[in-house]
Amino acid sequence: MAVILDGKALAAQQKPALMAKAHDLTLCLGRLPTLAVILVGEDPASQVYVARKAAMCQTLGIRSIIHRLASSVTRADLIAVIKGLNQDETIDGILLQLPLPAHLDRYEILQYIDPVKDVDGLHPLNQGYLFQGKPRLVPCTPLGCLQLIQSCCSDLTGVNITIIGTSILVGRPLALLLMQQGATVTIANSKTRDLIRVTQDADIIISATGQPYLITAAHVKEGATIIDVGIIKLNDRLVGDVDFTAVEKKAAFITPVPGGVGPMTIINLMANILKAAEERFNAQQTFKNS
Amino acid sequence: MAVILDGKALAAQQKPALMAKAHDLTLCLGRLPTLAVILVGEDPASQVYVARKAAMCQTLGIRSIIHRLASSVTRADLIAVIKGLNQDETIDGILLQLPLPAHLDRYEILQYIDPVKDVDGLHPLNQGYLFQGKPRLVPCTPLGCLQLIQSCCSDLTGVNITIIGTSILVGRPLALLLMQQGATVTIANSKTRDLIRVTQDADIIISATGQPYLITAAHVKEGATIIDVGIIKLNDRLVGDVDFTAVEKKAAFITPVPGGVGPMTIINLMANILKAAEERFNAQQTFKNS
Repeated sequence: MAVILDGKALAAQQKPALMAKAHDLTLCLGRLPTLAVILVGEDPASQVYVARKAAMCQTLGIRSIIHRLASSVTRADLIAVIKGLNQDETIDGILLQLPLPAHLDRYEILQYIDPVKDVDGLHPLNQGYLFQGKPRLVPCTPLGCLQLIQSCCSDLTGVNITIIGTSILVGRPLALLLMQQGATVTIANSKTRDLIRVTQDADIIISATGQPYLITAAHVKEGATIIDVGIIKLNDRLVGDVDFTAVEKKAAFITPVPGGVGPMTIINLMANILKAAEERFNAQQTFKNS
Repeated sequence: MAVILDGKALAAQQKPALMAKAHDLTLCLGRLPTLAVILVGEDPASQVYVARKAAMCQTLGIRSIIHRLASSVTRADLIAVIKGLNQDETIDGILLQLPLPAHLDRYEILQYIDPVKDVDGLHPLNQGYLFQGKPRLVPCTPLGCLQLIQSCCSDLTGVNITIIGTSILVGRPLALLLMQQGATVTIANSKTRDLIRVTQDADIIISATGQPYLITAAHVKEGATIIDVGIIKLNDRLVGDVDFTAVEKKAAFITPVPGGVGPMTIINLMANILKAAEERFNAQQTFKNS
């Protein structure tokens, strides 16, 4: 039976250091470190996520402000809100909650967020730094996956890892983070001809497709580590990409859903907000002293 | 016996269209499209590469200017040269020939090149666009590899591809380009525990390590396509990563060294220069008309 990789507990371990950092920054800045969230429309899942992020901010001593915009907001008005937050010296991090309504192109809009306030790590410049192996602000879910993996496997050099899913939020940045650690990485997708072929030898499998029970015991070798990024509501229950009950018997380590990757995503968002606040503060000090 | 993927011939096929485009742009711009090359120091290989690029520019009707700087040039002086070229309206593309002397950090210096003139596609912003699947200026060697692959395999959906090498010049951008085409991509490196395991089932293998004869017949399945990005001087001969004589007997398609990827790199640099010139011209027209 696999050991459960408890994301809730691992995230909780990071809280004291983050609270201390938030407190130190509050003294330096003369105000609380601050996140601005932009929430467009009424998507119920987004409402839940934003509320959770705000609650965690409060727990750690981070101020959060939510800008609620109608789903009919124009591109120009949305960009104006972002530009205002870029210029506002009291805002350290800006988070545009996704998804956006269909008339707004998220790739185009995300470019307007000042890269130094881009706490989701979705600005192309931050993605370019990650690509170069010089990461600045990195997307929170892949950071969380990496920490879960490193909690049971400290050296990833030469380790065979298969990622299923190629999104810019999870699959692509995670592939880069793992390559950076020396792993041999395979990135599969919904078109992959024979998924078992690319998962059956993997030391670590990360699935990020949102397809319930995609990964069965047949996909997994004995003693593998399984990270399940999927979270799907099925018959009023939350399930993941992985057939947990079957896979748990073969794997050495496995994340549950919920309570695996989810809490790690939120805690890394908090870390990114404080990192952004610290780096802006340090840059201003350097500027003052020069 | 494998069919040879003749990069020299494939590159030559692109010349007439590029010459026509250079000619059209010359009429639009009222001057030749222009590349500025910055060559720091006296590295003999760099001298050869720069001379080849300049010769190809001349063939196609592109002006090239070479800024030769001493290997002792300071960071500040090098950046000043780049900023001058950024501001010079008559320069369409800027190429900083790599490698740089040890006292200069290429990642830091490359950030100073205006992204719209970055014809090598090495600015983090251009790499971020590529990462997002919205490529603008893309590194020339991976573009050339993709075209060689597409010359024998038009649909890459679900195709299993193994890349050996994780550099920002070849392995990483090529992985993104191939993922974008729907391929299942494995990225191996020098630390990969069992290279044969990740190459033996691959439909396509791309090797970009600079390690002579790394890929033997044992690595390759019958009917695979082999792209050899390596080019190494060994006993006064140019050889690649692949044991050509042995692998040729098993592969369906294979690139030679020299005459495979090399000519494709140069022709794609030319295409990038003209693309950069065209996009700057179009942006200026839009600005004038708005």
